[in-house]
Amino acid sequence: MRRLFIAILGLLLIFSNVALADDPLPSWNDTAPKKTITTFVGQVTRKGSPDFVPVNERIAVFDNDGTLWAEQPMYFQLIFALDRVKALAPQHPEWKDKEPFASLLKGDVQGALAGGDKAIAEIVMATHAGMTTTEFEKIVKDWIVTAKHPKTGKHFAQMVYKPMLEVLRYLRVNGFKTFIVSGGGIEFMRPWTEKVYGIPPEQVVGSSIKTKYEMRDGKPVLVRLAEIDFIDDKAGKPVGINSHIGRRPIAAFGNSEGDREMLEWTQAGGGARLMMLVHHDDAAREFAYGPESKIGTFSDALMTEANKSKWNVISMKNDWKVVFPSEAK
Amino acid sequence: MRRLFIAILGLLLIFSNVALADDPLPSWNDTAPKKTITTFVGQVTRKGSPDFVPVNERIAVFDNDGTLWAEQPMYFQLIFALDRVKALAPQHPEWKDKEPFASLLKGDVQGALAGGDKAIAEIVMATHAGMTTTEFEKIVKDWIVTAKHPKTGKHFAQMVYKPMLEVLRYLRVNGFKTFIVSGGGIEFMRPWTEKVYGIPPEQVVGSSIKTKYEMRDGKPVLVRLAEIDFIDDKAGKPVGINSHIGRRPIAAFGNSEGDREMLEWTQAGGGARLMMLVHHDDAAREFAYGPESKIGTFSDALMTEANKSKWNVISMKNDWKVVFPSEAK
Repeated sequence: MRRLFIAILGLLLIFSNVALADDPLPSWNDTAPKKTITTFVGQVTRKGSPDFVPVNERIAVFDNDGTLWAEQPMYFQLIFALDRVKALAPQHPEWKDKEPFASLLKGDVQGALAGGDKAIAEIVMATHAGMTTTEFEKIVKDWIVTAKHPKTGKHFAQMVYKPMLEVLRYLRVNGFKTFIVSGGGIEFMRPWTEKVYGIPPEQVVGSSIKTKYEMRDGKPVLVRLAEIDFIDDKAGKPVGINSHIGRRPIAAFGNSEGDREMLEWTQAGGGARLMMLVHHDDAAREFAYGPESKIGTFSDALMTEANKSKWNVISMKNDWKVVFPSEAK
Repeated sequence: MRRLFIAILGLLLIFSNVALADDPLPSWNDTAPKKTITTFVGQVTRKGSPDFVPVNERIAVFDNDGTLWAEQPMYFQLIFALDRVKALAPQHPEWKDKEPFASLLKGDVQGALAGGDKAIAEIVMATHAGMTTTEFEKIVKDWIVTAKHPKTGKHFAQMVYKPMLEVLRYLRVNGFKTFIVSGGGIEFMRPWTEKVYGIPPEQVVGSSIKTKYEMRDGKPVLVRLAEIDFIDDKAGKPVGINSHIGRRPIAAFGNSEGDREMLEWTQAGGGARLMMLVHHDDAAREFAYGPESKIGTFSDALMTEANKSKWNVISMKNDWKVVFPSEAK
């Protein structure tokens, strides 16, 4: 019986390999980055390879904003927060005379954000705290299927990068666990990442505010407090990885200054490693920005470190056949 | 080709079901708790059942101390800390005159712990902080294969409950993801939970101290700081579940006051739910303790809530055929 079982399993593996022989990354041009990815996956998955990594240690981490989905003209979570300010304004008559809300409600986003980090923190707390986790989840779920991008008019979940969806799938087919490690809010991402990226909530790491357990009408709830818990950005990313995953990734994908330490941390482990940075150089199909951008800054220093450390820079313009799923034939 | 693939997959499922027809919980007596577990698993996994739960939502959480392994005469992590004080004493001549270390080094554990939470915090920080995460992992890995329990003389990883190992495996075979949610240190558990319980590091939630990313000799490290990050106990357990897992469990196993909120939180979701408490009433094979114990307290109030809320109390004495793996024939 056991032998029959094994024989069937063998057959099954042969057929699934046949299926895998198709190009797993059809939206990538045959330039260096694609080859780097497939070579790496071969190295760590081929039995007997000196760089073989057991399935349970195949951890790949992905930044979200600018790596898996777009982030211009501003982080989508900030657009969400602005939408929430408008939705909540009737309950907050005092906002009419109070910055940054007053400017926002007049449609002057630049004026509102002139208050810098303090203004952003006030907007975030006013829109992200004070409700239960269940209530917030519903707010995000409603927003993600209704709100539209100010330039493209697309739903935000359609502004994900098709080549990266293929990488996520390709890695998972090869036994990887894929994680998001983002500066974005963990509870802003979790309600939709499973459907959009195939990444379940327990594999999402992000920035967080504190929550408090309490009883309301005899039912337990977690209330979201207006207090920062953790910022999952820059040197916070390896901390977040250690806290949530507890092992070092062997592959890391980012696109900006905020991802530098995550790539360093990934690279510092032994054996084959894959470090990649998406470079937004495609004004025609997406956006082109780099050192000068406040959002998703890709400084000259980062480019220098990437070259020195042999991190792979993906040129959106040259390396991707399509950017968004809607372009695919 | 596709049809052949499906046919083979079907055969494979038939054979694996034959294998599953064996008793999945052989160390459990045929008393109520065993039936409760298997009935629940049937309810949530049978297609068409009104309580069916998709695979990705089958989350089960387990307390560790007193639920998966023993916790007497004191939490094993405290024994680890005391062992570390002895090992580190030569580097700390000042400890000879400084409590709680002075008492400890004279072998007077009770005297050392007389200092209460403050003394314990000092011992924990002196032994758990100041090194890198990689160094600490190695210390724990060395300890777990060498240190022995003061009463049984067994390695601590042998003092796990065989019936619970069977439950973990049974749930996983049925598509569950199993998580530890423990008041114990997250980085004290992760180095061995995969081997001992089949629970990988990324599915371990626990108490933590803060870490800091820095460069040492050009290599990035995470340094463990003498500062509490999070206490994963009592009302902290639902908070930790939300932070690490991001969805509500449908099954929760605990054994003490520290698990009450975790069970409440699990039960408050809709559909079939499984809440279980291990009761240590077996002085002959393990330990018997309840309301009077400072470790793993099981108060009368908890028993009242368990009865009222229809949580299932497992009597170690009556419901388990064997306790430790070494007893199994």
